[in-house]
Amino acid sequence: MSRHADPASPSAGSSRGPTGPAPALPAGFLTATAAAAIKKPGRDDMALLRCPGGAALAAVYTTNRVCAAPLVLDRRHLREGGGRCRAILVNSGCANAATGPAGMQDAEAIVAEVARGCGIPPVEVQVNSTGVIGVRLPLERMLPQIAPMSRRASGGTIESFARAIMTTDTYPKWSSRMVESGGRRATVVGCVKGAGMIHPNMATMIGVIMTDAALSPGELDGHLRAAVERSFHRISIDGDTSTNDSVFALASGAAGGEFPADALRRAFIEVARDLALMIVRDGEGFERGIHVRVTGARTDADALTIARTIASSLLVRCAVTGADPNWGRILAAAGRAGVPIEAELLDLTVGGVCFFRHGAPAETPLAEREAVFRRPMVEVTLDLGQGQGSDEFISCGLTTAYVELNSDYTT
Amino acid sequence: MSRHADPASPSAGSSRGPTGPAPALPAGFLTATAAAAIKKPGRDDMALLRCPGGAALAAVYTTNRVCAAPLVLDRRHLREGGGRCRAILVNSGCANAATGPAGMQDAEAIVAEVARGCGIPPVEVQVNSTGVIGVRLPLERMLPQIAPMSRRASGGTIESFARAIMTTDTYPKWSSRMVESGGRRATVVGCVKGAGMIHPNMATMIGVIMTDAALSPGELDGHLRAAVERSFHRISIDGDTSTNDSVFALASGAAGGEFPADALRRAFIEVARDLALMIVRDGEGFERGIHVRVTGARTDADALTIARTIASSLLVRCAVTGADPNWGRILAAAGRAGVPIEAELLDLTVGGVCFFRHGAPAETPLAEREAVFRRPMVEVTLDLGQGQGSDEFISCGLTTAYVELNSDYTT
Repeated sequence: MSRHADPASPSAGSSRGPTGPAPALPAGFLTATAAAAIKKPGRDDMALLRCPGGAALAAVYTTNRVCAAPLVLDRRHLREGGGRCRAILVNSGCANAATGPAGMQDAEAIVAEVARGCGIPPVEVQVNSTGVIGVRLPLERMLPQIAPMSRRASGGTIESFARAIMTTDTYPKWSSRMVESGGRRATVVGCVKGAGMIHPNMATMIGVIMTDAALSPGELDGHLRAAVERSFHRISIDGDTSTNDSVFALASGAAGGEFPADALRRAFIEVARDLALMIVRDGEGFERGIHVRVTGARTDADALTIARTIASSLLVRCAVTGADPNWGRILAAAGRAGVPIEAELLDLTVGGVCFFRHGAPAETPLAEREAVFRRPMVEVTLDLGQGQGSDEFISCGLTTAYVELNSDYTT
Repeated sequence: MSRHADPASPSAGSSRGPTGPAPALPAGFLTATAAAAIKKPGRDDMALLRCPGGAALAAVYTTNRVCAAPLVLDRRHLREGGGRCRAILVNSGCANAATGPAGMQDAEAIVAEVARGCGIPPVEVQVNSTGVIGVRLPLERMLPQIAPMSRRASGGTIESFARAIMTTDTYPKWSSRMVESGGRRATVVGCVKGAGMIHPNMATMIGVIMTDAALSPGELDGHLRAAVERSFHRISIDGDTSTNDSVFALASGAAGGEFPADALRRAFIEVARDLALMIVRDGEGFERGIHVRVTGARTDADALTIARTIASSLLVRCAVTGADPNWGRILAAAGRAGVPIEAELLDLTVGGVCFFRHGAPAETPLAEREAVFRRPMVEVTLDLGQGQGSDEFISCGLTTAYVELNSDYTT
């Protein structure tokens, strides 16, 4: 496996902002977008992904009990369609969530129109919507776009698709990896939207990861779940889980031949991690990130609980924003996570600088402490001194811009 | 039981800001304060409460695993002292938390000096500290104050004590109730500090509730726990639990005679609820509150889980700040709380106005929706349509002022 040759590839995942030239779609995939003025006119807010030759499908959907109408259909189609898919339609601007029976009819109408436009059975269609909750989709403007989109869908890069699914994202997000085997190449290409309501299981995020390698639905599901667990389930922006979260994975098989399963899985994980990091960096009001690693826990689950609690603490996140080396808040958050820990065993380092060792504050000069809190990503490592368990969690500073953006959304 | 006659009594709990004339201390209690320049000079930052005749003691301490040194001593004293107490010393400006063995020695030195100054055994002393974590107490400035404070402690009102324990509070918080029986009167008087790091189990809060009624330590503990459960455990400002939380209850018995247990318990609960509401209203950056009631749950515990999740959701709290009637966020928060709910059974009203009924949005005009979100306390009621369980939770809008205040604390 190798990264794409393009040095500006977003797969480097190391800089914020526009993510470099968009990767080409893997073989077997076509996209089209359209502007339906769903929330406001003048931008593409519908995106169609087609795989005319068929593709294996896997998906991870929101665990939210208040689940948007399209996801009810998607789950049914995934179950009844034998893990095959030929079209995904995503719209931004309206989530079609908490819309009651009328919203379900709207989602069914979109599925029917995609099926008709693409000439495929409805069970091979997946749909998703992102945007404001509790508002009906403007079907009168959306339905007439679908058949033309089906006709003009084409290969090229992932850019227009990734742009059309954005909501409050400030830039489109994509990443890719290449896997080589026996002189053949397969690519794994992903894109995602998500800038708020981001929290494990999962986020207001819609992601699509596609490959032209041949995979069974079961193999694809394994790769997707491994990737999601190590990426989107390890980030948080505001602790809320959307009604519409979905990550779709598709495998067209158009690359031909076989590729090593471990290389493909690694590619899925790396693409998903790139995308997750971009989501955090484009989090609403983002100024500075925080990456928490917890080591020395009794179990990995304990480590994850503490890492998530620290990274999600409002007081820790305010300190990150202010580049304030207030390590007491980090320990206080660890202490309330519900995991038995002993203060005397704790070692805390930030950016490689020791803050707390064996239950007592370190003597590190203030200037050194402040310096590590001023970095674009504050790297926190807390060792519990109890065992071999470890895990990580990534979030960002809480900013006044976040509050301003989210205090004025619908009105 | 009756409220104190004073119409400006803070027990009305209905207005933000200075909480009216301070109630008199119950019989048997004396206070003194002093300025030790613990964080900054020029204000009283040490507060001593004495009960020379002895008092029954009950206390609820933080559940945080990283627990401040004074609380380790307090727990031991409560256990070994037979539930009796003659002095409580509280300082603001420094939490003496995460200070290692040195911090424990500092707490012991303070206890020893209070015991010496008051002429009582150390086991009858409770201590607490609030302020920044990870910094040593300035004993050289604190210890010389203690004996003089012991000597000059006097009756009067609770005001100077309540002021001296403040950290980022913008005003002192107190409340009182009177219980009458057989021509005798007992009072229940409480004060509290707390404006940030507020979350159940418990908060960066230090509270003292005292009465001159005679109660055994066991009876007092029952009243205190009932009161805490219905007040401080139902509020959140930032979801963090401090290393130093404590609520102390003291009963001097100096009123003589007996009082009905149910009236005393009610007085404890009402005083604690007043204080809890004041904490929210004085929350860092407070602009508008949110009071969430969940009804129709299978169990009270389910109702509490959902109420707390809604009231703690950053997106809901941003909407509250912006007076943005974004009810979709309320349903999305309910849906991710981990409790099985059915969207088709949900009824959501805010300020008495219907937003969502039986799984579909209500047609209430936008102007009416906006009006109920503009009130000083946004009153959310979500009925799950499943059973008889109910509970409530109170929080406040997340504001840019909160973020600014907490981004610049230590430095």
